[in-house]
Amino acid sequence: MKMGVDYYPEHWERSMWEQDARLMRETGVSLIRVAEFAWSRLEPEEGRYEFGWLDDAINVFYKYGIQVVIGTPSCTPPNWLVERFPDVLPLDAMLHPRYPGIRGHRCYNSPSMRIFSARIVEKLATHYANHPAVIGWQIDNEFGLNECHCENCNIRFREWLSKKYDTLEALNQDWGTVVWSGEYSSWEQITTPLGGAKFRNPSFLLDWKRFETDSVVEFQRLQSNILRKYCPDHFVTHNIWSYPMSLDYYKLCEELDFASLDYYPSTSPDKAVSGGYGGALTLDLTRGIKRQNFWIMETISGPPGCWFPMWRTPQPGFIRAFAWQCIARGADTLVHFRWRSAPYGAEQFWHGLIDHSNVPGRRFEEYRILCDEVNRLSPLLEGSEVLGEAAVLHSHDLYNAFEIQPQAEGMNYFDNLKLYHRRALTKTGILTDVVNTADDLDKYRLIVAPSLYLLDETLADKLKNCAKNGATLILTNRTGVKNRSNVCWMHPLPAHLAEAAGVTVAEYDPVGHDVHTIRTQDGKTYSCSQWCDVLEPAGAEAVAWYEDDFYAGKPAATVHSYGKGKVYYIGTVVEESFYLELFGKAADSAGLTRFTGLPEGVQISIRRRGNANYLFLLNLTPKQQTVMLKGTYRSLLQEMSVGPTVHMDPYAVEIVE
Amino acid sequence: MKMGVDYYPEHWERSMWEQDARLMRETGVSLIRVAEFAWSRLEPEEGRYEFGWLDDAINVFYKYGIQVVIGTPSCTPPNWLVERFPDVLPLDAMLHPRYPGIRGHRCYNSPSMRIFSARIVEKLATHYANHPAVIGWQIDNEFGLNECHCENCNIRFREWLSKKYDTLEALNQDWGTVVWSGEYSSWEQITTPLGGAKFRNPSFLLDWKRFETDSVVEFQRLQSNILRKYCPDHFVTHNIWSYPMSLDYYKLCEELDFASLDYYPSTSPDKAVSGGYGGALTLDLTRGIKRQNFWIMETISGPPGCWFPMWRTPQPGFIRAFAWQCIARGADTLVHFRWRSAPYGAEQFWHGLIDHSNVPGRRFEEYRILCDEVNRLSPLLEGSEVLGEAAVLHSHDLYNAFEIQPQAEGMNYFDNLKLYHRRALTKTGILTDVVNTADDLDKYRLIVAPSLYLLDETLADKLKNCAKNGATLILTNRTGVKNRSNVCWMHPLPAHLAEAAGVTVAEYDPVGHDVHTIRTQDGKTYSCSQWCDVLEPAGAEAVAWYEDDFYAGKPAATVHSYGKGKVYYIGTVVEESFYLELFGKAADSAGLTRFTGLPEGVQISIRRRGNANYLFLLNLTPKQQTVMLKGTYRSLLQEMSVGPTVHMDPYAVEIVE
Amino acid sequence: MKMGVDYYPEHWERSMWEQDARLMRETGVSLIRVAEFAWSRLEPEEGRYEFGWLDDAINVFYKYGIQVVIGTPSCTPPNWLVERFPDVLPLDAMLHPRYPGIRGHRCYNSPSMRIFSARIVEKLATHYANHPAVIGWQIDNEFGLNECHCENCNIRFREWLSKKYDTLEALNQDWGTVVWSGEYSSWEQITTPLGGAKFRNPSFLLDWKRFETDSVVEFQRLQSNILRKYCPDHFVTHNIWSYPMSLDYYKLCEELDFASLDYYPSTSPDKAVSGGYGGALTLDLTRGIKRQNFWIMETISGPPGCWFPMWRTPQPGFIRAFAWQCIARGADTLVHFRWRSAPYGAEQFWHGLIDHSNVPGRRFEEYRILCDEVNRLSPLLEGSEVLGEAAVLHSHDLYNAFEIQPQAEGMNYFDNLKLYHRRALTKTGILTDVVNTADDLDKYRLIVAPSLYLLDETLADKLKNCAKNGATLILTNRTGVKNRSNVCWMHPLPAHLAEAAGVTVAEYDPVGHDVHTIRTQDGKTYSCSQWCDVLEPAGAEAVAWYEDDFYAGKPAATVHSYGKGKVYYIGTVVEESFYLELFGKAADSAGLTRFTGLPEGVQISIRRRGNANYLFLLNLTPKQQTVMLKGTYRSLLQEMSVGPTVHMDPYAVEIVE
Repeated sequence: MKMGVDYYPEHWERSMWEQDARLMRETGVSLIRVAEFAWSRLEPEEGRYEFGWLDDAINVFYKYGIQVVIGTPSCTPPNWLVERFPDVLPLDAMLHPRYPGIRGHRCYNSPSMRIFSARIVEKLATHYANHPAVIGWQIDNEFGLNECHCENCNIRFREWLSKKYDTLEALNQDWGTVVWSGEYSSWEQITTPLGGAKFRNPSFLLDWKRFETDSVVEFQRLQSNILRKYCPDHFVTHNIWSYPMSLDYYKLCEELDFASLDYYPSTSPDKAVSGGYGGALTLDLTRGIKRQNFWIMETISGPPGCWFPMWRTPQPGFIRAFAWQCIARGADTLVHFRWRSAPYGAEQFWHGLIDHSNVPGRRFEEYRILCDEVNRLSPLLEGSEVLGEAAVLHSHDLYNAFEIQPQAEGMNYFDNLKLYHRRALTKTGILTDVVNTADDLDKYRLIVAPSLYLLDETLADKLKNCAKNGATLILTNRTGVKNRSNVCWMHPLPAHLAEAAGVTVAEYDPVGHDVHTIRTQDGKTYSCSQWCDVLEPAGAEAVAWYEDDFYAGKPAATVHSYGKGKVYYIGTVVEESFYLELFGKAADSAGLTRFTGLPEGVQISIRRRGNANYLFLLNLTPKQQTVMLKGTYRSLLQEMSVGPTVHMDPYAVEIVE
Repeated sequence: MKMGVDYYPEHWERSMWEQDARLMRETGVSLIRVAEFAWSRLEPEEGRYEFGWLDDAINVFYKYGIQVVIGTPSCTPPNWLVERFPDVLPLDAMLHPRYPGIRGHRCYNSPSMRIFSARIVEKLATHYANHPAVIGWQIDNEFGLNECHCENCNIRFREWLSKKYDTLEALNQDWGTVVWSGEYSSWEQITTPLGGAKFRNPSFLLDWKRFETDSVVEFQRLQSNILRKYCPDHFVTHNIWSYPMSLDYYKLCEELDFASLDYYPSTSPDKAVSGGYGGALTLDLTRGIKRQNFWIMETISGPPGCWFPMWRTPQPGFIRAFAWQCIARGADTLVHFRWRSAPYGAEQFWHGLIDHSNVPGRRFEEYRILCDEVNRLSPLLEGSEVLGEAAVLHSHDLYNAFEIQPQAEGMNYFDNLKLYHRRALTKTGILTDVVNTADDLDKYRLIVAPSLYLLDETLADKLKNCAKNGATLILTNRTGVKNRSNVCWMHPLPAHLAEAAGVTVAEYDPVGHDVHTIRTQDGKTYSCSQWCDVLEPAGAEAVAWYEDDFYAGKPAATVHSYGKGKVYYIGTVVEESFYLELFGKAADSAGLTRFTGLPEGVQISIRRRGNANYLFLLNLTPKQQTVMLKGTYRSLLQEMSVGPTVHMDPYAVEIVE
Repeated sequence: MKMGVDYYPEHWERSMWEQDARLMRETGVSLIRVAEFAWSRLEPEEGRYEFGWLDDAINVFYKYGIQVVIGTPSCTPPNWLVERFPDVLPLDAMLHPRYPGIRGHRCYNSPSMRIFSARIVEKLATHYANHPAVIGWQIDNEFGLNECHCENCNIRFREWLSKKYDTLEALNQDWGTVVWSGEYSSWEQITTPLGGAKFRNPSFLLDWKRFETDSVVEFQRLQSNILRKYCPDHFVTHNIWSYPMSLDYYKLCEELDFASLDYYPSTSPDKAVSGGYGGALTLDLTRGIKRQNFWIMETISGPPGCWFPMWRTPQPGFIRAFAWQCIARGADTLVHFRWRSAPYGAEQFWHGLIDHSNVPGRRFEEYRILCDEVNRLSPLLEGSEVLGEAAVLHSHDLYNAFEIQPQAEGMNYFDNLKLYHRRALTKTGILTDVVNTADDLDKYRLIVAPSLYLLDETLADKLKNCAKNGATLILTNRTGVKNRSNVCWMHPLPAHLAEAAGVTVAEYDPVGHDVHTIRTQDGKTYSCSQWCDVLEPAGAEAVAWYEDDFYAGKPAATVHSYGKGKVYYIGTVVEESFYLELFGKAADSAGLTRFTGLPEGVQISIRRRGNANYLFLLNLTPKQQTVMLKGTYRSLLQEMSVGPTVHMDPYAVEIVE
């Protein structure tokens, strides 16, 4: 468990390197990430590689005991490359090039881009394979789908489709191109979604997104293969950029040693509470990518700013508290972005730990304390894991399918996921993992499965098995609507899960922002919106009924005993307190660990190693808060005993054993 | 009078055809529209026509007594056509093609498009001319202006202009191109309005819109000529897409047997009232296109949805009530879109009468009842007509001219028309037609003429004659501003109508959203906005005066006795109650039929045949309403007597004789 | 001092010229501006010049004693020119041409544009050099940056850079292109900012703006050189288009005889007060361009309107009051736009003094009175000047730098300048100039310097000298952030002014719209927002402290005695009353003239000539106002004595000696 910083030796006078290295060591920093955007310095012209300056820099830091992660520079193809090989540039849907001068101006399917990326990565890998300071690699930077429409992308898209569907007939059939005369009679007629219209075949669009993910994965694999070959002892990772995301991170990270996250929680005091919960989801999602601990490769050090207005500066305690939140939820190393603010370039105002003035200030002092703490607790926490008892299911395919066809005003797949996670996890204090729908779910006793819109029999069977074996499964509206080709099932909803849920959807009303009301068995009423499934139980028992509109009195939510477990179906999206009660009850009846009574914005998490349990208690708000624990514990940070009543200052952190 | 549905045999397994046909017959459906988007099935590759599947489908339905309207498929050129003849694709103002994959990707002036459309229509026409099930044709689908900028459009635009103006000198003169050195010294200098700027010569822009309409009309004529030639016994129609609209529907429908409308009233309960009034205008406009009854070629069957979020589901009674509204206002046949929701394609969630599950539900049951009712009353209503006593004038040219140059914040030609129609018609219960400014108006005793901004002597003379012969004419602000070339008259406003109105506009204040007040003769005050003409009577009598601003005390509205009639001039846009009073008074003094005291959202209409009068009373709201009739009538639906007090349930329909 | 109008003889029948000239003379008009958009009439085809019609028109007006300013027509290249030489058209960042049909469709760096502009200007200059009616020239119309991306612009941009930086190494160094591998290895790699992304190197973007200004200046110089050569006795000016503006007007006007302004204050009664203050700033800025009196080349005559909705009509007194405001702040001649509204073209509804009907109305009558008054007072005011005692500093470079990188939500350089000017000048009645940061400032005793974000030692030294010599200097947040290359200084803020201000910025919080509070020495509290610098005095005395957030109790504003003067540093943006107090106090302690107690919206100004002082008192509001003067004065307009109490009607004007 290490503390690191992102450092760009090429941005500073050589004379500053040693000065910086010395201050890092004093501060407790033991790792830097370098070189990720330095292609123009590493290869100033085609074929001329200049690694001397980087050697010098790394050696300075090595002298001070600081290890190094090297970023491959493929996110920023240099001007000479673009000038000579224009196929490097991605084309938008109107076939305009995305011109250089910004980063990310590279097509993943560009032959030149692939050749030159592979070449410089090979040079770097052979050069640094045995450098004692270098421990691993980050490939590229914050991959995303670039939705390029160049000829190479068109060719590869057709190849991808031809591999998937074999024949045009199969493709026409699966996509239902007969609608609006969209049938293809030759492969050449298929193009990337040119023209910028949204008004297209949804099956085509979903496959396009999948192809785009595969393009990124392939582009990354080219580099990871080289790194594996020459640097078998180094790790290989990539720094992902938050959620929601069209790019499938599960696929992207398959071949990596671990996932890394760039984590920038909102610094606005107004958004402290929601930002903390959103951050918890992001961290749980990242841990769920490979179902193991991960790294933070960048995180907040000061007010971010770029071409947009700067954010608020992090308040005292903010940097430390959110750093501990990362560790609490599975981060094993924290790399702060960045050591010092850049005087040049578009990100001048994306502030580092040290300001342009190079005078360490309040934020740096807080970081220094954080380094002390992490380095002190590191031996205890090393090797510990976060083990969820409940699971929330997530899928990029679902996210993309809902983006392609929004279902109702105000209904957003990821926002709902966020709300369930917040309700399921943080508020009710249930230890939760967020995992891919494709993952194995046997270990979970409570599974929340938001809107399984694309549902095939494989997934349905897996979930049915979980329930049969005793799990509580919570399904929601828009489950079972379509097959994996984004084509509607001709079955009553929720299709392959109707039998397990013991209910079908008689009809639905996409109510959007219009507010409706439901009433539960105990007579409480709750407001709901977005969507109203009118349910027809077939074995299930109703647990809530609509109070208004023409479906007043009809069931809105049901529960069905299925095998040794239970299947809930919630046909609408309800206000938070409904879920607090429902999930709490479900968790209790499933025998899950819970921490009740957490104040708004206070989060709890546990890392375990063998019998040792480290409980993290985080006040991610600018307010004083009081938490009641079940007893008295030893505080690892304060080295004294705390509890049962714990008074927490703004952004306070407690770690007890 | 028939009930029909839109049916796409190509979307379904053949085995479902017979099953669907049987259920249609049981339900009372006697008509389907087919094939409108099926080009890729009808001509899978160039010159290979495959009508066998359509023959089979039609024969199945024919067996069940169901008649067929065939849609020509020119709205969806297939991929092979686009691939081989790229001139098919329209180009936007930046010369980007509108790529296929969406429908409507065809330039009306593309030679290939014309040739291939004509060819397939000829094939279809000869093939189906004598099929006993086929009764008529719909050309293309929901025409609009596509504002294409391809070379063919440029050439034809120049031809069109040269035909209209003969010489460049005349064009330069009429458009006033001398402003900003816009004079053309060769025809080649004239292009379609490239570049996307709004900031152009308004005379040019208005002619461009007219050219665009003529391009559509010519494209349609190519098909209608063929259909007339081979299928002299079949009707030919087109399904228009609502209002407001830049394309001139009057011109478009000139050569058709009757107009058809695709009618999708808003399903949001919040918009029920305004949606019902807006719908009344749409239907009256459609009846006014050819001043005769029309068809509904598509109408709402469930929640619409596409690339946008789905709408609310129609509440119980909604589908039936809005179907009756169509008939009440002149529809002779209703074709619901669509029989069953499509599992594939961009319109998957544009719901049909039956859901994807193929289980008929609540909406289908309502439709079944509607079919029963319509089929039962059909012999009575057959041949009856809606005959308005008042007229509201409408023109696409005016709409386009105001779109090109908005006059004041919040002033919108069509919105004002909607308000006058609502005030003139529905609220005060006056039987109203909405007709083209170019139409003959002799029969009307009350003529509301909103903002006759483009006014020539011909139109002015016609209106003056109406007034002279006893009609009451209501003029509003922005009358007589320009000639037909969109050039300002150098006369005091309202130009050629100043003498008839007995008033001139001394000056005006485009007040926009700023609210002003007027006071009428009887001392009542009303708020007004958008525009304030300061009036100078020259023979007219003031009927309202401004209360504020520097024109306080100056006339805001006048009335002038002219010949045997009267001419009102309303210089501002006033709140609704002002018009209720004014229009009511004008109607009474003109001796028009009126139904006073209608509750908000309840609409009345009359269809006549000879001496028979069928009065339709529609509660287009989700609320219970009470209406007082003048006596007791026989209810055709309930087969009992109703009135004078009629209690109406939400979405209730009464038809009395 | 003259009254003029913009007149377009080419828009009217010849028969109207004499009629118009006669009415002008009767009205007191002695000047017209002509020909500025008449290229297509002056050169109907390449090389065929037709000046006869203009000769005829000018001669008619000359006969009536009316002088003429000729506008060069280079803003509107005619169609034949564009058709034959497409390089005339500017290209946007996606390389789409800006098509003709609108004005301003010309690239400043187009060789054809330069050749043909020079040619027609030479023809005009030689033709009219000795015409007795012609007194001067306006070049082009309302220059702005056109941000063209054509090949010519790219070539010239590279030349410009190569001249500025000499070597690529120097450019790479100054711009810090090493960030994100943006280093250039050949000049050809540098392009204009293609692609429309905002996300770019800020040093590059700022130089691009400077190059763009220089392109305009060079384009103008081509014409001014010709005019100087052939018409040595004529003045040469350009009519600028308001503020804020990316184009550097100081550079643009360097070679002109005087600046001219097109001045269109908002006619909305709701915006009367703020419009009046904004107008005061615009006029003071215009006077500051060359630090001398200027012309109004266009100003409001009726409701403006074009492709956007029309504005409100000017209320009675508005046209006159805002005309006098121009004179009060340094205008020596007023040219109203336009004599009569155009019946044709995109600006049909940009109303002139006379409406389309050609019937002079209320507005014309007001204009007639204005002409009388101005002509009557002209001998007195001729040669008088407006002499500010305080200065507000302004720079287009600063404006551009802040546009490239907004600092915080709601923080806008020009809006803040406007607020300081309003607070500094109008409300507290201090006589203020607004001058370029590069100007000599010796004469000012109070200097308000908003956000000197780009600060070099030269500017810092000049300001320090002013303070040393006794001036009071008021600095604000975001001072000293960067050098002139838009690269951050690595010094504590405010960098080179820290010593003079006696304070450094320990850290800052970009609070944006979040409202904070400060407290001053006398215990008053004020709200502040946008930005909070946390100050660390080093010699300065705190004068205000933050009341909240983690920097509660820390200084927010300081004052430092420096030499014979004082330096204030205000670290945040505070509500208006704070500045009223602060600036008032500073003005008093600096011994400046002040007019206290002016009601909201009433403005005061002084023109001096020798010992004569002409005080202008303007009520630029639609409300009655009362002003207390220090004594009794002679009213020049009323020719009676007024004061000390002056009751002012809406839009009333008093001029006293």
